[in-house]
Amino acid sequence: MSSAVTWIDIPANSPFGPDNLPLGVFRLDDEEPRVGAAIGDHIIDLAPVASAQMLNGSQLFARPSLNDFLALGRPAWRATRDWLFDLVRNPNDRDAVEPHLIPQSAVTMQLPFTVGDYVDFYASEHHATNLGRLFRPDSEPLLPNWKHLPVGYHGRAGTIVASGTDIVRPSGQRKAPDATAPTYGPSQRLDIEVELGYVVGTPSTLGTPIPVDAFEEHVYGVVLVNDWSARDLQAWEYVPLGPFLGKSFATSISPWVISLDALSASAVPLPPQDPPVLPYLAGQKLQNYDITFEVLLNGHRVSSPQYKETYWSPAQMLAHMTVNGASVRTGDLYASGTISGPGKDQRGSFIELTWGGREPLLVDGKEHTFLEDGDEITITAWATGSDGSRLGLGEVVGTIRPA
Amino acid sequence: MSSAVTWIDIPANSPFGPDNLPLGVFRLDDEEPRVGAAIGDHIIDLAPVASAQMLNGSQLFARPSLNDFLALGRPAWRATRDWLFDLVRNPNDRDAVEPHLIPQSAVTMQLPFTVGDYVDFYASEHHATNLGRLFRPDSEPLLPNWKHLPVGYHGRAGTIVASGTDIVRPSGQRKAPDATAPTYGPSQRLDIEVELGYVVGTPSTLGTPIPVDAFEEHVYGVVLVNDWSARDLQAWEYVPLGPFLGKSFATSISPWVISLDALSASAVPLPPQDPPVLPYLAGQKLQNYDITFEVLLNGHRVSSPQYKETYWSPAQMLAHMTVNGASVRTGDLYASGTISGPGKDQRGSFIELTWGGREPLLVDGKEHTFLEDGDEITITAWATGSDGSRLGLGEVVGTIRPA
Repeated sequence: MSSAVTWIDIPANSPFGPDNLPLGVFRLDDEEPRVGAAIGDHIIDLAPVASAQMLNGSQLFARPSLNDFLALGRPAWRATRDWLFDLVRNPNDRDAVEPHLIPQSAVTMQLPFTVGDYVDFYASEHHATNLGRLFRPDSEPLLPNWKHLPVGYHGRAGTIVASGTDIVRPSGQRKAPDATAPTYGPSQRLDIEVELGYVVGTPSTLGTPIPVDAFEEHVYGVVLVNDWSARDLQAWEYVPLGPFLGKSFATSISPWVISLDALSASAVPLPPQDPPVLPYLAGQKLQNYDITFEVLLNGHRVSSPQYKETYWSPAQMLAHMTVNGASVRTGDLYASGTISGPGKDQRGSFIELTWGGREPLLVDGKEHTFLEDGDEITITAWATGSDGSRLGLGEVVGTIRPA
Repeated sequence: MSSAVTWIDIPANSPFGPDNLPLGVFRLDDEEPRVGAAIGDHIIDLAPVASAQMLNGSQLFARPSLNDFLALGRPAWRATRDWLFDLVRNPNDRDAVEPHLIPQSAVTMQLPFTVGDYVDFYASEHHATNLGRLFRPDSEPLLPNWKHLPVGYHGRAGTIVASGTDIVRPSGQRKAPDATAPTYGPSQRLDIEVELGYVVGTPSTLGTPIPVDAFEEHVYGVVLVNDWSARDLQAWEYVPLGPFLGKSFATSISPWVISLDALSASAVPLPPQDPPVLPYLAGQKLQNYDITFEVLLNGHRVSSPQYKETYWSPAQMLAHMTVNGASVRTGDLYASGTISGPGKDQRGSFIELTWGGREPLLVDGKEHTFLEDGDEITITAWATGSDGSRLGLGEVVGTIRPA
């Protein structure tokens, strides 16, 4: 791809072309983890390159998380992107950069940032409708508040893990509908949730809401999220205070943070919102992103959710999350909730794909409902870059280990 | 109090006698915040005293949060308490300590630790029953799961604030039961929740539950918590994923962390649990603490909740929170949920004290339901020390500012 654009050799179909330039944190051998930018199959080791070029803030790339860079705010994010953009294009930079290109295969990717608060929304109408039908078959699938506000809740920040971390099957209480008392044991309905996560860079002040139009001042970019879910634990525990242990055992995120600037070419209008939203949720720049997800179970594609179908925009989620005066911090993560489209093959969880486990999927000749020990889940996604090429979001992977 | 025991002059009725020795973080003038121990009306500036006595880890007291000290674990917590215990008793230490006694009136107390994850439980049977009656008057007040597991959810860690921080009245969506659509505006049902918060010191490993008997290995001590709540926001938003903006605008905690060792003399058996709990929630050392709370509205006592009535023990809450393999980190905070006793004057929230706002309280000749702008709430609490004297938990204070 784009060998005419950049002096770096980038394989065809690489998610990380010269327009993408996502940031992450890598560990090479037993050196200290530090910040890199992905390009093709390589990582640019940013600290030495930025230091040699006397880039402002170059020391922040030597740190083991992106947080200090994220705290700099949008002007610095833009300047860094512009610098990187030129670096991979200008042949005169080749001698300075080439010694600091590291093969991605040589490193271990880390959690890219230290997570402050983690909020999970429920922004896909198709997902909320599917779950309403499954959990409350005798009533309206969408609850009365759903189209008035982006429903969300706080998840556990301390159990957000890097892609590749094994997921131990959680144990806990679950109760069959016809049982008189709960039992304890490993979850029998272990599931995934395919989500897009928004990473906050610029913090806000307690008591001051973030207007819906200030989204891009506060959010740096996105990661892929797999919000692992134990449906049996969740069903028994979740009234009246919401999901807790059914979710808190682990949430996996992808290693590369894709900037909003890289994503901007894939911006699309929101689906129509009816009834009209209250003024604090209405704005000039309400948009979604046109991102195609793929879910692989043991290497076989089982679903392809479309993000552009999502009902609530990320700017609305941020405005709602802070309308009560709650502040955000650098490193806060808020996720879309499960992304499901209208098609059966566009659903972002196995409880939807198998309709509560009653309609198994046939995958590689074998019937599948919920996750079995040893199952590997890969979520990947693609948008379109400014030059029309594919712009990848990388992947988030996890394998289920026995309880 | 105890002038025979300690060489420090401690006023009668001080919450901080020579058995208590709570730790907190203070700021004196424009010096860096650092760790101190409360005694009487004074603070022992621990860094210079510990350093002069070559105490192991003395440099941790020079830091602006307790986290690094909390991470040391129980043997170090005990050793530090023993050292402090002797320091305030031994007249030979007077010359070394006295220059580092600072009047509490001269400092500003800070948030004592950086909060990791914040979990709020719902552990008081009287509170859960009261809220069930108020919110679901036509059904059983306790939901089927309530006596099988300590119901809880994650709250917002980034908006936990130090005692004394003003609370701006939150705005958001609320819908009257007979209205067809929600409106936006300042909360009209702003409330408190009187809670006890448990502070995690020793972290655990992802995938490994904490047994119910390991509570004291992981938890350092307690703080007072006021979990401010906007009942109108909460009522409209909370299905199906639980409380979010109705709580996330602010949670206040007291400045002094009382160690479990100081509290140990006030340990009492749990109330009987029927039905019996599952084995992972059963243990040899299940206990509560006998702590009397007081709630003051603008200086007038309006309630006196008793902690010993709480149904679920803190060890059970910790075991449940981690039974799915979720890990805890140093600085995690989990709170009891609102503490209410059987008596009308033992309820820990105004929604209970005024029965949904329908039975106003008469306070200083004026009728009160929910909080008005300018209202000041003080929560204070007392246990009993090993010598039978009162052992105070200090106080958590907040004043409501207009939206």
